[in-house]
Amino acid sequence: MRAHTEYLWFTTRARRELVNITERLAEIVAAAKVSEGFCLVSAMHITAAIWVNDEESGLKHDVMEWLEHLAPAGDYRHHRTGEDNADAHLKRTLMHHQVVLPITNGALDLGPWEQVFYAEFDGRRKKRVVVKVLGE
Amino acid sequence: MRAHTEYLWFTTRARRELVNITERLAEIVAAAKVSEGFCLVSAMHITAAIWVNDEESGLKHDVMEWLEHLAPAGDYRHHRTGEDNADAHLKRTLMHHQVVLPITNGALDLGPWEQVFYAEFDGRRKKRVVVKVLGE
Amino acid sequence: MRAHTEYLWFTTRARRELVNITERLAEIVAAAKVSEGFCLVSAMHITAAIWVNDEESGLKHDVMEWLEHLAPAGDYRHHRTGEDNADAHLKRTLMHHQVVLPITNGALDLGPWEQVFYAEFDGRRKKRVVVKVLGE
Repeated sequence: MRAHTEYLWFTTRARRELVNITERLAEIVAAAKVSEGFCLVSAMHITAAIWVNDEESGLKHDVMEWLEHLAPAGDYRHHRTGEDNADAHLKRTLMHHQVVLPITNGALDLGPWEQVFYAEFDGRRKKRVVVKVLGE
Repeated sequence: MRAHTEYLWFTTRARRELVNITERLAEIVAAAKVSEGFCLVSAMHITAAIWVNDEESGLKHDVMEWLEHLAPAGDYRHHRTGEDNADAHLKRTLMHHQVVLPITNGALDLGPWEQVFYAEFDGRRKKRVVVKVLGE
Repeated sequence: MRAHTEYLWFTTRARRELVNITERLAEIVAAAKVSEGFCLVSAMHITAAIWVNDEESGLKHDVMEWLEHLAPAGDYRHHRTGEDNADAHLKRTLMHHQVVLPITNGALDLGPWEQVFYAEFDGRRKKRVVVKVLGE
């Protein structure tokens, strides 16, 4: 069994942003030299998520607007601690914070339109994603 | 370490449908000849999901109605591309598009009521799910 | 490849409850004697979930209130079977019922604020979570 671990760092310019990381993940998988395996991609900060969907600007706009509708910024009990980002915790929960990508014949085994995004909901500061490949 | 990969194809009759795939997954796990491992089940098209829940017709009706309430069909920015399925992308996001099933003693290690469903939100055409078993 | 499986049992006092299981998972990972691997944590009953987020009482209150807003208790088709917990099935779906935690250098590789919770939505009875470690 081989294991290969890398960490991706993000400091987004906007507070909320979708960053396409598919190419970076493909490079990590190539470096891992694993023919068959799994690639776990997990946001380590609790106000960010990982999303697998379409690289289409309209849809990316739709999903961020929809998340704002279902988990709006506003007044939350969490803010009594001095924080103002409770909605970001909820948005992470809706999108889910991780994915497991299959590796087949040494490459990411994605569908024709599947692209992997880092979804930031409370950015403008350094945050981390763990990428761990296991396989053979 | 052993790896075993299969692809399931679906062409649902209805645009939205829940298809119970538990038995098919059990057969794949048996064919994989893995005693201890993980079975990743991931929808490769970005308007479908994988759901682990109850084989009960009332609940299946409830969940589809509830998804329609939270992620309704309607007018979205994505539709400027000529598509009409933005809601299906959002429903996939809510349900999540994949699960990792534990394999113990050579079989799926599911709870008493856990059944695995392919959740289609934009069907009537050929779509694919990857099933990858890793273990020993 | 090493595999190590344990089951956690929960009987919560309240119907809805968040139980921090991070320490118990760390102990299981230590017992598994795996340096690099994955730890799958999956709720085996279909009215419970696993949540990775912040150990902060205000936020925990917020998330439960928010789930009640998006997936309220009420009248559902599922209740014609005699059940009264359809909302718990929906809440499990929103939160997702499982996570895969990375193991690096023999320990859970979590972000600075990541804590793992068992999320019960229909408790006061015995329910189970499977924890399976694979790695080397």
